[in-house]
Amino acid sequence: MRLRFTTAGESHGKGLVTVVEGLPAGLPLGAEYVNHQLRRRMQGYGRGARMKIEQDAIEWLAGVRAGESLGSPVAMLIVNRDWANWEDVMAHEGDGEIRRRRVTRPRPGHADLVGVLKYDRLDARDILERASARETAARVAAGALARRLLEEFGVEIGSHVVSLGGIVVSAPPRLPVPLNESSDASPVRVLDPEAESEIVSRIDEAQKNGDTLGGEIEVVARGVTLGLGSHVSWDRKLDGRLAAALMSIPAMKGVEIGLGFEAARRPGSAVHDPIATQEAVQGADARAGFQRLSNNAGGLEGGMTTGEPLVVRVAMKPISTLMSPLKTVDLTSGSEASAQSERSDVTAVPAAGVIAEAMVALVLADALLEKFGGDSLEETKRNHQAYLEAVGRRWDGVRDS
Amino acid sequence: MRLRFTTAGESHGKGLVTVVEGLPAGLPLGAEYVNHQLRRRMQGYGRGARMKIEQDAIEWLAGVRAGESLGSPVAMLIVNRDWANWEDVMAHEGDGEIRRRRVTRPRPGHADLVGVLKYDRLDARDILERASARETAARVAAGALARRLLEEFGVEIGSHVVSLGGIVVSAPPRLPVPLNESSDASPVRVLDPEAESEIVSRIDEAQKNGDTLGGEIEVVARGVTLGLGSHVSWDRKLDGRLAAALMSIPAMKGVEIGLGFEAARRPGSAVHDPIATQEAVQGADARAGFQRLSNNAGGLEGGMTTGEPLVVRVAMKPISTLMSPLKTVDLTSGSEASAQSERSDVTAVPAAGVIAEAMVALVLADALLEKFGGDSLEETKRNHQAYLEAVGRRWDGVRDS
Amino acid sequence: MRLRFTTAGESHGKGLVTVVEGLPAGLPLGAEYVNHQLRRRMQGYGRGARMKIEQDAIEWLAGVRAGESLGSPVAMLIVNRDWANWEDVMAHEGDGEIRRRRVTRPRPGHADLVGVLKYDRLDARDILERASARETAARVAAGALARRLLEEFGVEIGSHVVSLGGIVVSAPPRLPVPLNESSDASPVRVLDPEAESEIVSRIDEAQKNGDTLGGEIEVVARGVTLGLGSHVSWDRKLDGRLAAALMSIPAMKGVEIGLGFEAARRPGSAVHDPIATQEAVQGADARAGFQRLSNNAGGLEGGMTTGEPLVVRVAMKPISTLMSPLKTVDLTSGSEASAQSERSDVTAVPAAGVIAEAMVALVLADALLEKFGGDSLEETKRNHQAYLEAVGRRWDGVRDS
Amino acid sequence: MRLRFTTAGESHGKGLVTVVEGLPAGLPLGAEYVNHQLRRRMQGYGRGARMKIEQDAIEWLAGVRAGESLGSPVAMLIVNRDWANWEDVMAHEGDGEIRRRRVTRPRPGHADLVGVLKYDRLDARDILERASARETAARVAAGALARRLLEEFGVEIGSHVVSLGGIVVSAPPRLPVPLNESSDASPVRVLDPEAESEIVSRIDEAQKNGDTLGGEIEVVARGVTLGLGSHVSWDRKLDGRLAAALMSIPAMKGVEIGLGFEAARRPGSAVHDPIATQEAVQGADARAGFQRLSNNAGGLEGGMTTGEPLVVRVAMKPISTLMSPLKTVDLTSGSEASAQSERSDVTAVPAAGVIAEAMVALVLADALLEKFGGDSLEETKRNHQAYLEAVGRRWDGVRDS
Repeated sequence: MRLRFTTAGESHGKGLVTVVEGLPAGLPLGAEYVNHQLRRRMQGYGRGARMKIEQDAIEWLAGVRAGESLGSPVAMLIVNRDWANWEDVMAHEGDGEIRRRRVTRPRPGHADLVGVLKYDRLDARDILERASARETAARVAAGALARRLLEEFGVEIGSHVVSLGGIVVSAPPRLPVPLNESSDASPVRVLDPEAESEIVSRIDEAQKNGDTLGGEIEVVARGVTLGLGSHVSWDRKLDGRLAAALMSIPAMKGVEIGLGFEAARRPGSAVHDPIATQEAVQGADARAGFQRLSNNAGGLEGGMTTGEPLVVRVAMKPISTLMSPLKTVDLTSGSEASAQSERSDVTAVPAAGVIAEAMVALVLADALLEKFGGDSLEETKRNHQAYLEAVGRRWDGVRDS
Repeated sequence: MRLRFTTAGESHGKGLVTVVEGLPAGLPLGAEYVNHQLRRRMQGYGRGARMKIEQDAIEWLAGVRAGESLGSPVAMLIVNRDWANWEDVMAHEGDGEIRRRRVTRPRPGHADLVGVLKYDRLDARDILERASARETAARVAAGALARRLLEEFGVEIGSHVVSLGGIVVSAPPRLPVPLNESSDASPVRVLDPEAESEIVSRIDEAQKNGDTLGGEIEVVARGVTLGLGSHVSWDRKLDGRLAAALMSIPAMKGVEIGLGFEAARRPGSAVHDPIATQEAVQGADARAGFQRLSNNAGGLEGGMTTGEPLVVRVAMKPISTLMSPLKTVDLTSGSEASAQSERSDVTAVPAAGVIAEAMVALVLADALLEKFGGDSLEETKRNHQAYLEAVGRRWDGVRDS
Repeated sequence: MRLRFTTAGESHGKGLVTVVEGLPAGLPLGAEYVNHQLRRRMQGYGRGARMKIEQDAIEWLAGVRAGESLGSPVAMLIVNRDWANWEDVMAHEGDGEIRRRRVTRPRPGHADLVGVLKYDRLDARDILERASARETAARVAAGALARRLLEEFGVEIGSHVVSLGGIVVSAPPRLPVPLNESSDASPVRVLDPEAESEIVSRIDEAQKNGDTLGGEIEVVARGVTLGLGSHVSWDRKLDGRLAAALMSIPAMKGVEIGLGFEAARRPGSAVHDPIATQEAVQGADARAGFQRLSNNAGGLEGGMTTGEPLVVRVAMKPISTLMSPLKTVDLTSGSEASAQSERSDVTAVPAAGVIAEAMVALVLADALLEKFGGDSLEETKRNHQAYLEAVGRRWDGVRDS
Repeated sequence: MRLRFTTAGESHGKGLVTVVEGLPAGLPLGAEYVNHQLRRRMQGYGRGARMKIEQDAIEWLAGVRAGESLGSPVAMLIVNRDWANWEDVMAHEGDGEIRRRRVTRPRPGHADLVGVLKYDRLDARDILERASARETAARVAAGALARRLLEEFGVEIGSHVVSLGGIVVSAPPRLPVPLNESSDASPVRVLDPEAESEIVSRIDEAQKNGDTLGGEIEVVARGVTLGLGSHVSWDRKLDGRLAAALMSIPAMKGVEIGLGFEAARRPGSAVHDPIATQEAVQGADARAGFQRLSNNAGGLEGGMTTGEPLVVRVAMKPISTLMSPLKTVDLTSGSEASAQSERSDVTAVPAAGVIAEAMVALVLADALLEKFGGDSLEETKRNHQAYLEAVGRRWDGVRDS
């Protein structure tokens, strides 16, 4: 990998740390840009009280000077504003309070049970603090840097919710551009007012029942240069790298590209996207003079971007912590018990789109830097531009002949 | 990664090479074991003439002595039996014949177009030879070694087709054990005689129409020790690693774990798997004394195996080379054209299950070696056994109290 | 890699961040243990004023609870106590002060010149802040965690200076145990009182001349279990991994293992270490019943540890920032100039041993976890113990027969 | 890593396999080019009979068509011409002969003893076959591809022996260009006729005594573009990556860059290389308009290439298999024994230079592709050229002002 990122931090710990390594120098960066993404992650109807506490914002620790990346690792800290209330329970050293308040009734659907057995812990808190979706704030911060880089190359990444709590959204066939302007305007990030109100009711109902809801999110990246990723080796294929990044988001149980599972049900003649030449375009274009008459492939063929919009969908299961707790076993007695209830949301699907966007951005930025190299933004842009021109030139030669 | 594998080879080249690095020493290995998996990959109703030519078999090149792995990299060669007929077109050096027979009408759905632009080639054959699904034979060979290792730890991996050409299979709720014995007995690898004959007809029909079909495959791994993978970092999560491995198989457009997309549509109370103690079991068990009253999670929670069967599904699009070719552009003239037709199958879904099994085996073997370490089979088994006993002991202590 | 670490931070930035990922859970950790190593890094005769300011100490950010590792990434922050004085020059956003105080006379021996050209920067400070040896404080923090882990497996790591400013030290043939207790007692970390006073004079003299001094350091790790690393692939060989880790320390220009370059000058009969059985030992021993009658190999054969003490040496060039500055070119005018003088030390050789120890510890801990696996300290120790017993048992069988 | 390579194969196995992944497409490649390097590896006064048998040559298995790389993994096979004589002892399956001819007297200085204990083998042949220096033929083949790539960027890599058997060579201060033309003309690859005849006598003498000799090799790479590698993170620093690659060659015990250990003994004023502007050069130059008035740094500052010649030295211990065998222990009886004698050379130092060149080439090619990206040779060259021009332009601007 050309671009690497690491996160650290527990849900109720001192804070979350993100280190992003491999960015070119000279990329304009501002905390407000990152914080905007962090705020987007906290939005969405159906969230609990924690969201109000969070009000996440980063503090630069390293790698940025005078509003530009230095080429060195960028480190960001998201301080946990609630730390004072958790300092006893999460103390780094000393353990008086800690021993008295163990979590011993593992919650189904969480890492709790397997975690305590694998890591040989007595307190499921030692596991759940890290397995918590809180970690995704650090991913969103990392993803914001990748997104900022991609912007310089004309890439726009957005998402919208396509189903929630079983209610399927009828999004318009042509998605608005930019996508997030529209989807963020909806409390549940859908592009269908009718479905929106149904979903809001469904969330209210679930809350009454102490239940939780999942859903499906679509992420769309426009303007991605053709030829990112590769067909040559299994671990260079971009579809696999995207799937890994998306499925690694907590609670995700499915990933689709383009038509996805629907592609498996249609005949080939109704799946593959015919190739045509593109109408004359001004300047270099991400598609280099070609177009597909449809985009069932979702912008990926042979593990490479085609220049058409990249379209991926993820399936998020309902939140695992229910207010009407599930059956479990108490690890101190071996007897049947009700799972611990940590305060929780009804659904996090709207916000999960922001996380999925971040992971897509990180994968695309990595693939872009892999193909174009470069240690300064200018160098990477120069290489990128020269590639588009060379592909266009070759093709122009053909069309002129 | 503890276990690494690399493949090389073009579809009509001299052969395919696979190198698997990181296996412990002392693992019993025989060519016949690997060849059995290669034969399984060539099965399935709906395949073209190529399958008869292939009759793949490996030749050991390195890493195996006296029927055992040495701990050094294992290299295998699958010779292309048709090489004599392709030697001109695929010659390594010299290029008389090559220049005359270029592929210049890129096939939609393939790597052809993006590949020639990205890699700056004049002949799409330079791309399609590597992007071909033929490469998956090398993956199956690698996967066979991983499968052989996992067998020593009580893991059984199988697969079956759950839909093909739009026909949904009604598999029995309790899958047969071992799974492949039943699924391999069906020409389309389904566990539903009624669906089987419908699917066979659908394939015949597609063949008449010059069309192709996709489908969905379910892979099940039983006996996987709880605690493989990890929740601590995004790239250690086993769900992400499985998704990458599966989505990197050519033609895959979707991956699901457990309930998958269905999990996104149900309320949490109908998704998460309650935890219970397990009936007394003889000896150490992969689940260490616990069980889930359902397995909607598909054997993965928090990016770790739960000890329940691992269940993943992949969606395969129809084969991209149609006998009624799709519209494309001729790269030498810029004018509209019909895509090149390489001889092809109607569907490869039944065989794709074998490839998906191989990729799952490689990911699980890697995760197993990561957790248990070991340079000899005996050492890895000793560490594995000691872990199961320690987890069981701790838990027994609780149950006895 | 099983154990990964990342550092971030500029020399005069807000602080240094270290993330260590892959440690087992349950490792006892205290800030004081890490700080002790940080203090050792600040010692040594010949350091400038900066050392007094530094007084480095870590703050836990993540991965530690109640004095134990959680298995999740451990993040540490070393705050820069001088930050207030640098906030203008190193401001993350906004750039008034920054533009006025550029470093434009690159210092020979530093990353300055190549860095500004490669990363396309106008101010060499954008490079030198990260290329500074200050970054090694973050490595020492990471290494302290690795050292703590290795202690649990009976490994003791120490170092001493074997030459400084051209004065060769006559260390006793049998090094004291523990090594650091003796070497840390010397202001220049040598085990030879006569050489010590000569070195101190040489440093004083160099200071008068505005010059700087380099030297050689020997790191010794005792009690390392035989069989870490591997001969099977080039990038698994432990000698290569150690060389990479050591040569990556700023200012290092040479690495030797065991006899090192001297081994190249002797005949084979005077180099290779005869193998013998070991006197009866109580309990499991890192050497498993064997011993070498000499240790010219420095504890490594075939890329694997032999159980004998691991002995490596590094050559550190003199500090590149001289008070009598070297000739260079002014990047704003193209004319000849004197290199920028940042306040600096005469020599950092004594402290460099602490950094070298840290890098050795990180490599050994990685190799140990790779071989023994384990997610909790107890599991890794159990696997380690079982290996030593198995090797011993096999060999006892032979000796009894 | 952008460029990856894997080798497989035992010393007396069927052959050696090398897979090189990540090369751009369009690189002209011929077997003869690779074989030339393989022949260079077999040269040198002091080699035993095996060298005559070897006559290594590659067979392309994958990744090359019509004399050009395809961008897909390149696989090469070096058949072992002696395989027929070893088929019994090294049989992949079945083990009649194998059980009767075990190697049980581990040779000091080899992987034998640690290997059998670590990998739990009864026959040291299971270890020594892979730990053998024969594996380096596969590295040389891989390195030849890297060398071929670097040639396109004006890089010339050569080596010469600087000491052998304790005799120090007085190479001319200005090394000949190209270096290998001169050094290959000497039977011991030295640039000093007097030392040459002394060395030849020393080898003859050692042979009479049943002894072996080591030595030191210097590798020089000219024309390496400034700015490969990086200062930003420990594992991106080029000095560390070179050290790892070189120290991973069997029998290497030391690595130096530039002045190396000598740099540790001089004052800073006699070490660091003053920076000056360069005389007007025709066209883009690897140094971008600068030069160093000396090259004590060996072409690396801050983990990056400076554009000056890259100079590294390695120390090779004497061959470990002596005809007057060393003392060891018989693993079947526990009693003292003489080490097994495999037929062997007196010295392999001259040939080792070729291996060291290969490893340097692989590291530089990787770093070059990392910086410049590119999927076709043309693209990488275009990016490289644009970088040199941009650096030159910026600097010209300064000089003009």
